[in-house]
Formats: sequence, structure tokens, C-alpha cells
Amino acid sequence: MAFIQTDTFTLRGYECDAFGRMSIPALMNLMQESANRNAIDYGIGIADLAQKGFGWMLMRFCLRMHQYPRYSQTIQLMTYPTTVEKYFIHRDFRVVAEDGTLLADASSTWLVFSMEKRSMVALPDFIRSLSPPTNVDPLPTLPTKPDFQMAAFSPTDTKRVEVGWLSIDQNKHVNNVAYVQWLLEAVDADVLQTREIAEIDLVYRTESHWHDWLEIQSMDETDSSIRHRIVQTESGKDVILARSRWRES
Amino acid sequence: MAFIQTDTFTLRGYECDAFGRMSIPALMNLMQESANRNAIDYGIGIADLAQKGFGWMLMRFCLRMHQYPRYSQTIQLMTYPTTVEKYFIHRDFRVVAEDGTLLADASSTWLVFSMEKRSMVALPDFIRSLSPPTNVDPLPTLPTKPDFQMAAFSPTDTKRVEVGWLSIDQNKHVNNVAYVQWLLEAVDADVLQTREIAEIDLVYRTESHWHDWLEIQSMDETDSSIRHRIVQTESGKDVILARSRWRES
Repeated sequence: MAFIQTDTFTLRGYECDAFGRMSIPALMNLMQESANRNAIDYGIGIADLAQKGFGWMLMRFCLRMHQYPRYSQTIQLMTYPTTVEKYFIHRDFRVVAEDGTLLADASSTWLVFSMEKRSMVALPDFIRSLSPPTNVDPLPTLPTKPDFQMAAFSPTDTKRVEVGWLSIDQNKHVNNVAYVQWLLEAVDADVLQTREIAEIDLVYRTESHWHDWLEIQSMDETDSSIRHRIVQTESGKDVILARSRWRES
Repeated sequence: MAFIQTDTFTLRGYECDAFGRMSIPALMNLMQESANRNAIDYGIGIADLAQKGFGWMLMRFCLRMHQYPRYSQTIQLMTYPTTVEKYFIHRDFRVVAEDGTLLADASSTWLVFSMEKRSMVALPDFIRSLSPPTNVDPLPTLPTKPDFQMAAFSPTDTKRVEVGWLSIDQNKHVNNVAYVQWLLEAVDADVLQTREIAEIDLVYRTESHWHDWLEIQSMDETDSSIRHRIVQTESGKDVILARSRWRES
């Protein structure tokens, strides 16, 4: 059976930034929440996987903001799996206003890791066999390795953060949205005040844990795009690579 | 006319900590949201005050956790003003489970500042004259200066943070809950993993702004209580003073 998750949210004050626009981390938190609920309907929720010795890992996420919802606005968020491959499952998100205007959409790619092997595995049959809804128009599948993942990276700015207790999820890993908070907070003050994100494209590479130190790096790519990288200080491993595109706000 | 604000919330994954308990900052965010809505009903919302050249400032907040709500639980949050004095207005919060069990309660004290004078003023008449509900049992009014505000403070631990974009509210000030996040993240790993907050009592002293550097200080007070202080690095001013009480979790 196919399930489309539809949730209605009315924006709370703390979900909006200093200009009253919905913050990107707040929106990603809601997307994650709706995705969890949809996964539960499919019998592939976090708890279902944990029971079988597996866990979800987000590998790719690309969010496009068409129009920012604002404080007290009611939005409808839909999410559903689109395609299932040997190793990857793809999930789309759509956010619409009450009048149906498309405010944002996102595509994502997820993989499964085995807790015992501590590594990625082919999707187990109970996931592989699920039926995505057929009455939707899927976004293009994200490239597994986008161009910016392979391109040279010379940071023009580096900040250091220590992973705190409140950034840890029930898997004892840093939650996926915390990284986006850190990389946004490292963006130039001028950009944050005069522009807004049109698109953010993320590659998740390695997990990190409580008390890890992370280097939050960024480099200007073009007039309207910034590249980001988060590196684990101790291991030197890439945690996340990203590109954000900005427009006048 | 008197208004009691009642909101129902179902806990989202990112509102819970690594143990699945509702996080204190998440609960405080919801309390703030319900308080805003209640203030709008009374015609004393943030926008109502701003229009007249005033702003709200939180001075005291004391939260008691009786039983932690958990992921996916539905809670009911009630808030209402209790007493109005020349300079202060007091507001209570009650959080109950679906079966009516009291999960948490909080009391708070607010003052009004004049944007022109940049200082505290007596409550304007349109606030002074409001009618708190009479069918409630108010918590004791918080002392304006609790004992820990005056006691000596010798920090045993200090961390530094820079105020980031996502901690700024629509007044361009650091939001009240961000401070609590910082002081909780500075608590010993062992305490965070084996105990839970029974009570947190906060005195807000000065506002801080984007890009300010803050010193997050703490000192063990007794076996089960910690004192906290946040100081603006540049001005040396106290931003917040607090005491948290902990119990086995």
C-alpha cells in the first residue's frame, strides 16, 4: 500500500528568523518529522529498523525555497518515497500555502546501515519491496555525487564548534539539521541580512558525535553561491559538503 | 475580559533529547509561543506594544518539571496572566498530559521597556488595566531578586560562544530560550546522562545581540544544584543568572 504523508503546521515565532521568514532549519525539522511519520506508515520507521539492527542515514538533501512562509502562516507539508533502488531510497517533500501556492520542495536520498557491521548495506527486502505512491510527479533523482563534492575547496572562512548535548538525536548522532544551522551561522552578516536562500544542496558524508569538534568552512563560489564544508577536527573526515544559492530578499 | 490560552501540542522528534524526553528549550519555546498568542487576545501582543513604542522584556522565569513528556505524546499547555503591578506583570504556565497529570508548571515576570528611552517604564494603562482570569490558582509570585542573584559566583567552568543569526528574534535580540540552550550545553556530560532537570530558575539581566561574544559560566552549588551565569565578554555585564536543580533520571 502507498502512503502520502500530509501534515499541517502553523508557524510558531521561534520557527522564524529575525525578518519573520521561516528559518531553513525549522523547515527541515518539520520535513524530518513528516518523513518519520510517513516511514512509520510504511513499517520502515526508525524503531522498525532499529529492531532489525538497521538505521537510516540521510545521504543527499536538496531544498528549494520558492517563497518563504512567514510567522503564523499555515502550511501543508507532503512527503512520500518516490523510487527504491538496490542501495538507495528517494523521498520528495512539497510545501504549499493554504491557497495551494508551492512554497518549497525538496528531494532526498537515504541509505540503510547495519548496526552490527557499522556500514552501509543493500536495502533489506522489507524496504526494497515498498510501493511508492503513483499519483505524484517525482522530482529528478539527485546525483549521488554532485559536481561540488569533487571540486577543490579552499576555505575563506573557518569557525570551530563543539557538538553539544542538544544537537544529539536518539541515535546518539548529531541530527541532520544541526549541521545546516552551523553552516548558515557561518555565512557573512551582509549576506544574511540582504539575501535569502533560494536552494541548499547537501551531501552527508560521515556522522559525528557528542563532544566532537567540527570545523565549519565556507568559500564564496560565485556572486550568488557559497560552498560549505564541515570537517571533523580530530579525524580530518568530511562530515558534510554543501552548496547554497542566494537571491535578493 | 479574561483569557486563558490553551494549546495542544504533539511532541516532534526534534523536540526531544537523546533519551526521548522533551527538551527544556523545546518546552520553553512552546510556552513562549502560547504566551504570545494569549497576549494577542489581550491586545498586548508584541506587535501591539511595538506600535506604541514599547517592548516586552522577560525578567524572571522559573520552570518545574514534574514528569517529562516524551516523543509523540500529546500535551496541553495553558498560560494566563495572574497579577499586574505597577512595573511587573506575572504569567503562569501549566502543562498537562491527556489524562490531566501535571507534567510541568512555570511562573514568569515581565516588564515593559520604552524603545525611545531604552529603559524600563511603568506598565502603560492598556496593560495595567487588563483582567487576569479569576478561576485559576496562581503560583506564588517569583521573588524579584532570588538569593542566588546576590550570592558570590566563582565559575568552575567557562565556555565562550558567539551569538549567531539563528538565535536572534524579530526584535533583533537574542531570544530568551537561546541562553538556556547555552547554559544546558555547558553542563557536565555525566550530569546530562544520568540526571534530569527538576527545576530551572532564571533571572534575565541584560539583552545581547548578534555577534556578541558571551561567557557561559557554571559552578556546582550542591550535589543536586548548579548555578549558571552568562556574561557579555566586551561589556562585562551579566546577561543571565540561573540555578538548576537536578534529580536522578
